[in-house]
Amino acid sequence: MQARSVEAGREEFIRVAAGPAAPTSGTLQPLDLTAVTLDPGGLLGAWQQRNSTATLPHCIDRLETSGAVDNLRRATGEASGQFRGMWFADSDVHKTLEAAAWELGRRPDANLERFVESITDLLERAQDADGYLNSYFQVDHRDQQWAELVWSHELYCAGHLIQAAVAASRAGAGDRLLGVARRFADLLVKRFGPGGTDAVCGHPEIETALVELYRTTGHRPYLDLAARFVDLRGRGLLGEEPKFGAQYYQDHAPVREADEVTGHAVRQLYLLAGVVDVAVENGDASLLEAAARLWESAFDTKTYVTGAHGSRHRDEAFGDPYELPSDRAYAETCAAIASFAWNWRMLLATGGHRYADELERVLYNGIACSTSLDGTHFFYSNPLQLRTGHDGSHEDAPSQRLDWYSCACCPPNLARLVASLQSYVATTTDAGVQVQLYTAGRIATPHGEITVETDYPWDGRVTLTVSPAVPGATWTLALRIPGWCASATLDGVPVTGEYAEVRGAWEAGETVQLELAMPARVVAAHPRVDAVRGCAALLRGPLVYCLEQTDLPDDVLVDDVRLDATAPVDAVPGEIAPIVLTARGTHHDPGDAPLYGPPAAATGTPIPLTAVPYFLWANRTPGAMRVWIPRVS
Amino acid sequence: MQARSVEAGREEFIRVAAGPAAPTSGTLQPLDLTAVTLDPGGLLGAWQQRNSTATLPHCIDRLETSGAVDNLRRATGEASGQFRGMWFADSDVHKTLEAAAWELGRRPDANLERFVESITDLLERAQDADGYLNSYFQVDHRDQQWAELVWSHELYCAGHLIQAAVAASRAGAGDRLLGVARRFADLLVKRFGPGGTDAVCGHPEIETALVELYRTTGHRPYLDLAARFVDLRGRGLLGEEPKFGAQYYQDHAPVREADEVTGHAVRQLYLLAGVVDVAVENGDASLLEAAARLWESAFDTKTYVTGAHGSRHRDEAFGDPYELPSDRAYAETCAAIASFAWNWRMLLATGGHRYADELERVLYNGIACSTSLDGTHFFYSNPLQLRTGHDGSHEDAPSQRLDWYSCACCPPNLARLVASLQSYVATTTDAGVQVQLYTAGRIATPHGEITVETDYPWDGRVTLTVSPAVPGATWTLALRIPGWCASATLDGVPVTGEYAEVRGAWEAGETVQLELAMPARVVAAHPRVDAVRGCAALLRGPLVYCLEQTDLPDDVLVDDVRLDATAPVDAVPGEIAPIVLTARGTHHDPGDAPLYGPPAAATGTPIPLTAVPYFLWANRTPGAMRVWIPRVS
Repeated sequence: MQARSVEAGREEFIRVAAGPAAPTSGTLQPLDLTAVTLDPGGLLGAWQQRNSTATLPHCIDRLETSGAVDNLRRATGEASGQFRGMWFADSDVHKTLEAAAWELGRRPDANLERFVESITDLLERAQDADGYLNSYFQVDHRDQQWAELVWSHELYCAGHLIQAAVAASRAGAGDRLLGVARRFADLLVKRFGPGGTDAVCGHPEIETALVELYRTTGHRPYLDLAARFVDLRGRGLLGEEPKFGAQYYQDHAPVREADEVTGHAVRQLYLLAGVVDVAVENGDASLLEAAARLWESAFDTKTYVTGAHGSRHRDEAFGDPYELPSDRAYAETCAAIASFAWNWRMLLATGGHRYADELERVLYNGIACSTSLDGTHFFYSNPLQLRTGHDGSHEDAPSQRLDWYSCACCPPNLARLVASLQSYVATTTDAGVQVQLYTAGRIATPHGEITVETDYPWDGRVTLTVSPAVPGATWTLALRIPGWCASATLDGVPVTGEYAEVRGAWEAGETVQLELAMPARVVAAHPRVDAVRGCAALLRGPLVYCLEQTDLPDDVLVDDVRLDATAPVDAVPGEIAPIVLTARGTHHDPGDAPLYGPPAAATGTPIPLTAVPYFLWANRTPGAMRVWIPRVS
Repeated sequence: MQARSVEAGREEFIRVAAGPAAPTSGTLQPLDLTAVTLDPGGLLGAWQQRNSTATLPHCIDRLETSGAVDNLRRATGEASGQFRGMWFADSDVHKTLEAAAWELGRRPDANLERFVESITDLLERAQDADGYLNSYFQVDHRDQQWAELVWSHELYCAGHLIQAAVAASRAGAGDRLLGVARRFADLLVKRFGPGGTDAVCGHPEIETALVELYRTTGHRPYLDLAARFVDLRGRGLLGEEPKFGAQYYQDHAPVREADEVTGHAVRQLYLLAGVVDVAVENGDASLLEAAARLWESAFDTKTYVTGAHGSRHRDEAFGDPYELPSDRAYAETCAAIASFAWNWRMLLATGGHRYADELERVLYNGIACSTSLDGTHFFYSNPLQLRTGHDGSHEDAPSQRLDWYSCACCPPNLARLVASLQSYVATTTDAGVQVQLYTAGRIATPHGEITVETDYPWDGRVTLTVSPAVPGATWTLALRIPGWCASATLDGVPVTGEYAEVRGAWEAGETVQLELAMPARVVAAHPRVDAVRGCAALLRGPLVYCLEQTDLPDDVLVDDVRLDATAPVDAVPGEIAPIVLTARGTHHDPGDAPLYGPPAAATGTPIPLTAVPYFLWANRTPGAMRVWIPRVS
């Protein structure tokens, strides 16, 4: 390497565009679908491998047993019987199809190919001549077709069909599905485009899908329709008093005027992903500003320490600012996935480091926690506390992961994200490469290939070996310094700021070593977060840790321990995870304390505490759990 | 007075029976409907007067404007148009009718008489020949009659009809309504009694109503049917997987086996009122034991400091033990009324002092808070905290009381309770009189008349003047010493225990003076109540106090103040109430504190705090409120 300088500072990104692995013309580019290979020895690679071998086959199996595929067969006349599952169960099929397509983009798999082909055949046969495709409305509810967009999920299902088709096309898994999607999209343009009906869908999703379809096809009417759906929102088109109120659907105010994330969390976050897509492709600054403003509402006042969203079971919704209960955290898996998608788009659109921080936080915590170690059991809701004596009578508040759900939106959503996880590791510009997430693997970019060796997130050392496309060419390797990291070095030199940058003329085999200090951290919440007042959470690197009953003696309930937040917290090797945290605490047996009485001094018995990564909870003996631990006063 | 002794200790009550003002044969007896007169100068009397002049006329008016009466007119063919409101809107009519009947029991009122007569006429005309009466199922949904008891509310509506008829009969407002109710009840006995269909209603209410009807008529099959409904619960008769799960309806376990209050709070508490009624009338010890066990579950782990119940908006339900969030407290007005009814029955059944304590707590706080000062606006849900920036888009989580609800169960429920409020002030036995609630008024008992002079709950001095029925007769006047009271005197002599008893041969004009020390109290919650960890509530006497934004400077948000719980709290005259509390606190401007960061030391600016009675909140400038105040660390 000739001239090589280690710099720290914010990379200046000007304008960007694109969904995952979309070939677009922005400045901060995602990498091609096959550009990154995750090493299964790393955590992200291991997740992706488990997704291939366990989660995706499980989803495919469940599409059959749940009746979701049979619903489509009914639409072709090949099956009889009743429609089964939710009326939007087609979207489970589409999401699984998308996951399979992403998989096929990375590796050949005869079974997956057969699955994609057979479902594509089925969808082709089921599709109406005019392009309409929705098994619920095609068989028993013809008369209600397009009649009630507030709850029909017709455009939502169409969106997932489109996303599956885009994935298949980008992954080289055939363009037949794209044909199906385009015929449907063309119908939508005709029906809801300029000159057509003014309408929006009760559940956003079509917006981002149409922009992705535009990116893949270059056909402008798809983008225009997406923009139209965004602009028509908040104008009462879902009815003056829709069930649960207009906020539930983000139809209470136009997107450009809204200043708070509200209502159903998945709906809000899917909408915002689409908003950014439209803003970027149309160069629409005021729309991007709105998204940034809503981002602040979400991440300054309504985000769990796990990166999850949705404080209320009622309406699966955002709560008031600072309303973040641990026990009743809804924290839906799909909302976490939606937040990931939104932050990815915000990162590409603005280059803002904070968006990459949130990508990482929600991935390692709010998303990762939803899947069991065996890859075939899932949480729908992801609380941060489970009390002793928890009432698990609702399937979205169980004490253990379930293998499927009557509303099965989450498992195939996980499958499609993890199948394409490598796409989110790095970005590129003409000036160089930005590594956003650290995990063992290989990153091929137009500037060259980067091999990443690391035990991240268990260890903060990241060794990057560069093989430049053009030896001696000058470009910048920018390495994200996570917001959680208070002390980082690059090749031994302390670096600060948001990205550590190495600019130089690269020669083959050159290495860069980033060292992110990763001590355990004791974190408290903003004083207005009443739910965890006087508590602390234990974090290390990007991981949130938690206490589980199984790590405590039987007579010491996790409900009754406190943390000595001033004592050292140590990172030590563990069984459930490479690193667990040990801390000092006290046990406070409440005895016969009354429900209400004079304030009592806390006297406890010292007890050692072991905290395990939150994303691994509920994989051992079932029991109570808590992320936020009361501090010894 | 000849031999007069002041004793303190628990009254021994053996066996009791009866709903409000029911003429039954228990040992601890309620007083006759007209036995007690509340002085409108006292707080309970003032509430009852406001109920007469404002709330009840408002309800009667709203029955017309909401369409509830028109629904019945449709059933007679006198009106056309669509059914309006909830499918169980008949119950709003029945509850209002019950309230009017209780009113007429105390005083003549030509308007109310006309109302009762005209509705009775209407119900008579609407009733089917076989006794069936439900305007929703009689007009548009004949084919669904009795088809789906899990959600139909048919027996629930029947129960409220019966309770109205019982009230009319007891209040001397005519027995025509009783005829309607009996015809319906006879149909129920035929259809669901022994030899008939095994069934229960998705919403309990019929159980207590049938026992009350038995008490009024002496017709045993009504009691037997109530017992049957209680015993058939928890046997899956509502379906294997009813919507929201079996716990929602308390159908997950037989009543005798249940050990935790669960599910929809109003359903659970109405059921328990009926359970006690059946237990008492049948001398069923194991059933009463079950009620006592469930009482402990409720009051040891699932009751708000206001006496309210229901921690979850989702399902309007009880939460896990110690899950008692302030902001998302559902605390439905109807649940508080149901708790009042249940505790009244437990008090009569067992003589347990703790039940009278809960009567008082929920009356002055959880119930009283629901009605506005003008008597025509109501809370459906009664949270203990309202944040700055609260999303009031749901009508059951508003920041201000509304004048009616799409589901209007609460306002007429309040009306019927307050119209009969005098019935709950005292009880009697052969041995004497027990004063359970203190308020200015006159209590006529078989032993004699007691005039009560007091400014309770603003002042703890209660002067009772006795005019015995038989001069010189010996009986015991038992005065409840509330659980909150740490120091009481009777005629200057310190008394302890649950009831202060004066046993003697009473002469006319003798007075007894009870003095309940009423200093402000600082109260904390059980350490497992995560939601209010590190907080204190200010109480005085039976009243819970709260902070309202309007009592603070604009730049000091109620969200940001803390209480110096070690400094004196003073009771001083106020504007909104005769007594408000002043305390010392600090203001902690969070500035730009991050949502999550290292624990920070709290430094605040001293600020005086004024707390007002919780039941009076939201009667001035709308704004944030909190009962639980973080303590200065």
